[in-house]
Amino acid sequence: MAAEIDEQPSVLAGLVERQSEFAEVADAISKRPPRFALLAARGSSDHAAIYAKYLIEVLLGLPVGLVSPSTATIYGARPDLRDVLFVTVSQSGGSPDLIEATEVARQQGALTVSVSNTPSSPLAAAAELSVDIGAGVEHAVAATKTYSATLMSLYLLIDAIRGGKAEDAKSIGELARQALDGSGEGVGRAVDRYRFVDRILTTARGYSYPTALEASLKLAETSYLAARAYSGADLLHGPVAAVNGDTAVLAVTSKGHGSEAMREVLEAVSSRGADVLAVGSAAKDVKSALGIGVPETVEELAPVLEILPIQRIALGLSLARGGDPDRPTGLLKVTKTR
Amino acid sequence: MAAEIDEQPSVLAGLVERQSEFAEVADAISKRPPRFALLAARGSSDHAAIYAKYLIEVLLGLPVGLVSPSTATIYGARPDLRDVLFVTVSQSGGSPDLIEATEVARQQGALTVSVSNTPSSPLAAAAELSVDIGAGVEHAVAATKTYSATLMSLYLLIDAIRGGKAEDAKSIGELARQALDGSGEGVGRAVDRYRFVDRILTTARGYSYPTALEASLKLAETSYLAARAYSGADLLHGPVAAVNGDTAVLAVTSKGHGSEAMREVLEAVSSRGADVLAVGSAAKDVKSALGIGVPETVEELAPVLEILPIQRIALGLSLARGGDPDRPTGLLKVTKTR
Repeated sequence: MAAEIDEQPSVLAGLVERQSEFAEVADAISKRPPRFALLAARGSSDHAAIYAKYLIEVLLGLPVGLVSPSTATIYGARPDLRDVLFVTVSQSGGSPDLIEATEVARQQGALTVSVSNTPSSPLAAAAELSVDIGAGVEHAVAATKTYSATLMSLYLLIDAIRGGKAEDAKSIGELARQALDGSGEGVGRAVDRYRFVDRILTTARGYSYPTALEASLKLAETSYLAARAYSGADLLHGPVAAVNGDTAVLAVTSKGHGSEAMREVLEAVSSRGADVLAVGSAAKDVKSALGIGVPETVEELAPVLEILPIQRIALGLSLARGGDPDRPTGLLKVTKTR
Repeated sequence: MAAEIDEQPSVLAGLVERQSEFAEVADAISKRPPRFALLAARGSSDHAAIYAKYLIEVLLGLPVGLVSPSTATIYGARPDLRDVLFVTVSQSGGSPDLIEATEVARQQGALTVSVSNTPSSPLAAAAELSVDIGAGVEHAVAATKTYSATLMSLYLLIDAIRGGKAEDAKSIGELARQALDGSGEGVGRAVDRYRFVDRILTTARGYSYPTALEASLKLAETSYLAARAYSGADLLHGPVAAVNGDTAVLAVTSKGHGSEAMREVLEAVSSRGADVLAVGSAAKDVKSALGIGVPETVEELAPVLEILPIQRIALGLSLARGGDPDRPTGLLKVTKTR
């Protein structure tokens, strides 16, 4: 897991160099311009899909939905999917429910695209178009480089659909390197601070919300914490009642519109005495017990960087608690749900 | 909260009697048949929106998305929403982000429908069509009767769009009464069992998944538990690693396709030694430490009944732990997020 975390700067830089491949897929999509987009994924890839949802709504101006594959696989739903761009996101490309959902979507008229780390996978074969996230083999069960590479690939694809040439992403590899190199001390302090924690709540708004979701999953699966993610807005709608001086809150906040909207959320949890760890390019701007900064970038790309120190915290915490971050008990790399 | 829980059988029966009102709204929708549906909501209403998502995909064959209001309110997204049915779900009808998202959707060409308990609300005024869930004033901060009434209203609306006349819902009031009357002993045992629990995981698949989400929120907001919901499929994709003999699992399972798909999930958590409380019409068919049955109905309507004993558990647990279920600390009935 440690080695795979370290590979990310070069994996991300490599993806940006392959921009023309993403532009080709985008061209094919532009020949059948969609009116709606649907995304299907599970686990970490589902968090990447939520990131793509924000990009598609804001950058492309298309309405988007996240599909529950079970409506097709369990309930036999057969919706009319003409004019629909149907994107599946799966590191392995081997999940039976996503393959079946893609086959159904294609039959129902959707333009299907798979985003996966396995170009020869059955999922890539089932979809009309496919994107290779090029992260190389990932051995650790907890996804790290495949997560950031999936975010980056979705960004490159969606940026290409709007006619971009990845201008804002040119230095992402270098920024990722800085994010990892510069956060060592903060990560060490966070691991110390969470050594004996039992429950953590993660929160963010806007583009950073998928980071809060992924942080929660990463901590739960490597360190067996009771971690739970809320969008900042949903948190204020109820669960904030359970926040008190014993609550650890990991707040993701990067410069931009999302962090402005996070202000009231952080005020609410701070006023209840919560122990706040802030991560992101706006981390130093908010009141917290501990802030871990990452380099600033355009807000749409912030999630690619924000997750890096969080992966290191999950890794460090797993080791500190005597776990095996590469092989958490009871987990398989590819899950075969239907 | 106790009184409002008890009102549900009559509120639900009253809604079915108003089927013709739902048919009128459905007629207006049929004159501008949508190709795609979008749903926007927060908190408990968001769980009802996820229920509606399953209904729309399976019963109407329309692709559906859940909207993040923040893309319109924070990032200024202005998607093309012609041919889109845009449904907002809000008990109060007063949430500024939902009102703004509705206004934007209407400007962008969507057919807008509000589903709320406040027919005179700004949200109902902003939407072209509106549905009154008719639950009467709800005083307790934790939503109970407005939740089940919202589910029922969404069912009646979607059933009417497909040309139905609520045939399957005729006896829902009576079944709800049986669900409440028949679960007293099980609820009492569950409250005893969870008196000192700290973390609970709730899970379900398909139509029952919104019940797992609502159960988790209800327990967190009234009893300050670290409760977290997972779809059964997502649970197997990672978080199951944190399940062991000390984990309380509330599994919602009602007869039908969803409960068949839940079998492997329950086997996985049981084999890891988890303490399983099963709730639903299939509760007695699965291995559990404690099973609370509810009357059987068509699978689409099961969520209306499943939540009833769970609300009673949340209430009982809050009282047993010395809390005030009507006014949990730090919560407001209407949250004004933007």
